[in-house]
Amino acid sequence: MSDTYPRRRHALRELLRAEDLDAMLVTELRNIRYLTGFTGSQAALVVRTADEPDAEGGTVFSTDGRYDTQASAQVPDLERVIERPSDRTLAERLGSDPARYRRTGFESGHVTVDGRDALAESAAGVELVRAPGLVERLRMIKDASEVEALRMACAAADRALADLIEHGGLRPGRTELEVARELEARMLEHGAAGPSFETIVAAGANSAVPHHRPTGAVLAAGDFVKLDFGALVDGYHSDMTRTVVLGAPADWQREVYDLVRAAQTAGCDAVRVPAGVREVDGAARKVIEDAGYGERFVHGLGHGVGLEIHEAPALSQRGDGTIQPGMAVTVEPGVYLPERGGVRIEDTLVVRDSTTELLTLTTKELVAV
Amino acid sequence: MSDTYPRRRHALRELLRAEDLDAMLVTELRNIRYLTGFTGSQAALVVRTADEPDAEGGTVFSTDGRYDTQASAQVPDLERVIERPSDRTLAERLGSDPARYRRTGFESGHVTVDGRDALAESAAGVELVRAPGLVERLRMIKDASEVEALRMACAAADRALADLIEHGGLRPGRTELEVARELEARMLEHGAAGPSFETIVAAGANSAVPHHRPTGAVLAAGDFVKLDFGALVDGYHSDMTRTVVLGAPADWQREVYDLVRAAQTAGCDAVRVPAGVREVDGAARKVIEDAGYGERFVHGLGHGVGLEIHEAPALSQRGDGTIQPGMAVTVEPGVYLPERGGVRIEDTLVVRDSTTELLTLTTKELVAV
Repeated sequence: MSDTYPRRRHALRELLRAEDLDAMLVTELRNIRYLTGFTGSQAALVVRTADEPDAEGGTVFSTDGRYDTQASAQVPDLERVIERPSDRTLAERLGSDPARYRRTGFESGHVTVDGRDALAESAAGVELVRAPGLVERLRMIKDASEVEALRMACAAADRALADLIEHGGLRPGRTELEVARELEARMLEHGAAGPSFETIVAAGANSAVPHHRPTGAVLAAGDFVKLDFGALVDGYHSDMTRTVVLGAPADWQREVYDLVRAAQTAGCDAVRVPAGVREVDGAARKVIEDAGYGERFVHGLGHGVGLEIHEAPALSQRGDGTIQPGMAVTVEPGVYLPERGGVRIEDTLVVRDSTTELLTLTTKELVAV
Repeated sequence: MSDTYPRRRHALRELLRAEDLDAMLVTELRNIRYLTGFTGSQAALVVRTADEPDAEGGTVFSTDGRYDTQASAQVPDLERVIERPSDRTLAERLGSDPARYRRTGFESGHVTVDGRDALAESAAGVELVRAPGLVERLRMIKDASEVEALRMACAAADRALADLIEHGGLRPGRTELEVARELEARMLEHGAAGPSFETIVAAGANSAVPHHRPTGAVLAAGDFVKLDFGALVDGYHSDMTRTVVLGAPADWQREVYDLVRAAQTAGCDAVRVPAGVREVDGAARKVIEDAGYGERFVHGLGHGVGLEIHEAPALSQRGDGTIQPGMAVTVEPGVYLPERGGVRIEDTLVVRDSTTELLTLTTKELVAV
């Protein structure tokens, strides 16, 4: 058993101490997975801030009968309570010993209004304190095992796209849906548990719709085809966009493509410790604005990826904070010309101390298939 | 344009009137999809209870720039505000005209504790009233277009399993993961946009784990192989479980299988208007208890399916309410013998006035492949 999960719980305890909390009730499943390794669909976790930094006394995990065997294997090192719903079950545990769990944090950014009341009823005598985003703060910085999962997820997507193109999967006459399904099937062949989000394949004028869902629209010669997709490996999400042309690119296509590519390069170059996230967004945005297309870049530059497809940090003008070593982020500028077509180019990269590691390795040259 | 969405909003207004609400702020994406047809990932909707039953005055939809074109196509009949985050945007709209939206319901079962505070800040002057589960109550009863989507989703799963077996996909030597991926790829071939949840393939002793995730475990002659999977079509989820044997079944396998099958038949027969949901669960559970395996049936009998894989009603001893025409539910008893193996058999069916329509048509005979 690796020390991954005890180490993460230890890091959480440090944050709890800083907030003067005796414990934290974790109910968000990805946060529970991050802290325990448990992958089931119903669970809760109480992490107690013990006096000794590494002691797990009072830390307890709960799931239900469906996952009893699985929990024994995945969470052998914690006390387990098999009873559902697990959040209420652990809230009752808190309520049964209020002196020990006097001030307990809860995930106010995840727990619903009705859910909080139910927890408060079960945990009578305990002060439930809003403690949003603590585990997410830890999750922003990926450890080696997480980077490895992201690397495998990105590789599955790279290989799937290479296979698709090599086998003639991108050709006039096919529908967006056919292409999307082939791409997804090929990701499965390369080790993905599934797509990491709903695959976008957008041909011709549809490529001007930033988040187009694939339809029965038929690919035609001369079309831009925008493919935004990713693979899920060990719970980690990859995210990549490439835009290709079916046949020889027209001048306007070349122009838009080169512009987005220059912006994407500028964005990637700006992802450096300790740049501000707005600064990173601004670096790519300026390239597009200077060319007079600022109005056509209608979304933020990128986002963190990990156990969620979108997680902190947001690389946008609304984001907060700075680039830190261990972050995994996307860089994905786009220019969309309604009724004509659009281009987005997106990579996933991991931040190192003084550089970045590119995880999505598919070429960013304009590919004419 | 069909009248599907106006009709659903009209039905919601009836519920709002009964709760003495002037409007409802809908922020849950599947509920927004249900009420408008919008399929993007960021949106909000205010439905106002106008004086005239069918008037949509004061009803307004919001999404962001990524979905501007898509929203024009999918939600042409409502006022649209393109600004994110959409929930805050519409809360500000409420706050700008508090007399008109005096008592506005919000989805307290979905909105988080922190989210509610942000909305209240934007909607100053408006009384935000807890109104949980209103759209979900409508969604419990499927209309014809929803049943058609469920039928297609179930058919994709049926066909995928038939293809898998016909092409020798279930054989000793393959891994659970290989089988899961082939099954998912075949669902895509049959029109699924993706799997409706993480496919379960559990061989041998793993079949005793109710919600086993497929691994590199190798299928062996004599194994039970439990397959629990579904397809996603037009946003609707199918859900089916079959358990097969690789080779000739042993006596204990036949015995467990026949027991679960008898319980499943009893459960399906009990799904009749106006049975209570506990009664339905009890009908299947009694068969298993009478055979002495009650402790081995560790979950509820079934659940509603639709825009979510698990939705109301819950067919279990913790559930509430009765069977009503138009519900779509699963019936899925199981018996799990730790270290040996388990059987679950699951169908999805739609409730009619005096009968049910079975949507998952794969045989429930014990298949020895």
